[in-house]
Amino acid sequence: MGYVHGYSAYEAGRLRNSANALSELLHAGVRYPAGALVLEAPCGVSAQTGFLVRNSPGARFICMDISTLSVAAAAQDWPGPAFLAADIYAPPFLPGAFDHVFACFVLEHLNRPAEALGNLLRVLKPGGTLTSIEGDHGSCFFHPETPEALAAWACLPKLQALLGGDSLIGRRLYSVLAGAGLDDVRVEPIRIYCDPSLPHMMKGFVEDTIVGMLRGIESEVIQRGMLDAAVFRKGVEDILAIKTHPEGAFCYTFFRAIGRKPD
Amino acid sequence: MGYVHGYSAYEAGRLRNSANALSELLHAGVRYPAGALVLEAPCGVSAQTGFLVRNSPGARFICMDISTLSVAAAAQDWPGPAFLAADIYAPPFLPGAFDHVFACFVLEHLNRPAEALGNLLRVLKPGGTLTSIEGDHGSCFFHPETPEALAAWACLPKLQALLGGDSLIGRRLYSVLAGAGLDDVRVEPIRIYCDPSLPHMMKGFVEDTIVGMLRGIESEVIQRGMLDAAVFRKGVEDILAIKTHPEGAFCYTFFRAIGRKPD
Repeated sequence: MGYVHGYSAYEAGRLRNSANALSELLHAGVRYPAGALVLEAPCGVSAQTGFLVRNSPGARFICMDISTLSVAAAAQDWPGPAFLAADIYAPPFLPGAFDHVFACFVLEHLNRPAEALGNLLRVLKPGGTLTSIEGDHGSCFFHPETPEALAAWACLPKLQALLGGDSLIGRRLYSVLAGAGLDDVRVEPIRIYCDPSLPHMMKGFVEDTIVGMLRGIESEVIQRGMLDAAVFRKGVEDILAIKTHPEGAFCYTFFRAIGRKPD
Repeated sequence: MGYVHGYSAYEAGRLRNSANALSELLHAGVRYPAGALVLEAPCGVSAQTGFLVRNSPGARFICMDISTLSVAAAAQDWPGPAFLAADIYAPPFLPGAFDHVFACFVLEHLNRPAEALGNLLRVLKPGGTLTSIEGDHGSCFFHPETPEALAAWACLPKLQALLGGDSLIGRRLYSVLAGAGLDDVRVEPIRIYCDPSLPHMMKGFVEDTIVGMLRGIESEVIQRGMLDAAVFRKGVEDILAIKTHPEGAFCYTFFRAIGRKPD
């Protein structure tokens, strides 16, 4: 199974820029008590790790990712947490090892999300919480909406589906977590909204996150013949132009869910 | 120009049920000071009027609507405000007559929203605020998503466009208000989210609001041949089934904007 965003240095930079713009919204209310042992799985290039550590300075973090390269880079940036390379389908920990689990932007990329979730639950203590944050590419709408922009954007969920993922999983997060056996599941949609009065959101979200994601898949879209290269590029430029359009608007919804492992 | 929702008694009941479910969200933070004179334009069947009055008990409301029938019904329900039948393109008031204007679910139905807004601004005092609340039918996504459900839902923005409206105006509300000359425009998206843990939202929004709206346009959709009757009906049933589906989810975004008339 492939990872739609790849593992390039370009991509690592993009993920960190995006994380800066979104972090306040995604991490609002995610706080772990002093002494708690928290698993971040996966940590990727540690785009979210810094916010976890900053918001919960007394907690201890163990951060894993399937990519040895990502983990090595992350460990250089963050001296606090322990990093390790491991597969989310087989986390190398004893049952109930963690007080809490934080899993961000991962289920959408997996072809067996329920199995991965089951493995994360296995290493979670009874009574501990699992927090899951996912996007939903079907939640996206914007203005102006050109046919090329819509076609370029549509390549992202299509490619993710070809790679075995589900970029529309955000809206289903309640039932995915409840179905995995978590109790008291609560979902909070995290709504991104950009208009001309919010240039930092236009930059951080439309340019760094959305256009960044699209540029990251350009070569694969063209290689696979999913869309004519010129159409794709015009679509991406049209989306970028929203950033400074006097009537520009861009909306997207992430979903954050938290559930408790039954005692 | 037609009004996509019509003026039937069924429709009046639907609009009031919907208003009950959504009111907390739509009216959160809409408060007018004691003694302020506020124009509600239009008031329709007074679906929002009760919440305005309840949340700002010291303010005085004048509520107008183009439909004499709607105004007559509204006046029976709410003894406080003064109701009158008048055209939003020609509000019969002196310039600067009002401290504030509240305009909910109207611009999306007009073929000249900027002109209507200009007329509302004319009767607003310099320094007074205009609050506009609109939906955006392109913001809607749900699970499960059947082809019939998507086709039935798509009839609503199509019909509204045929009647001269723009059901995607919500996302443009910032530039619509700023373009009309309002200062300090701030837009707040109001996100509706329903999952199986929120049965009251499923009932109030998916059934009463969304399915209610679709049933309200069924005869017109079929008369105009916009969609096969059986497909439309199955689509509506599929959307209704989300209400009790164990993995059901429904999302929609309203937009509330407030701006200040320059001194």
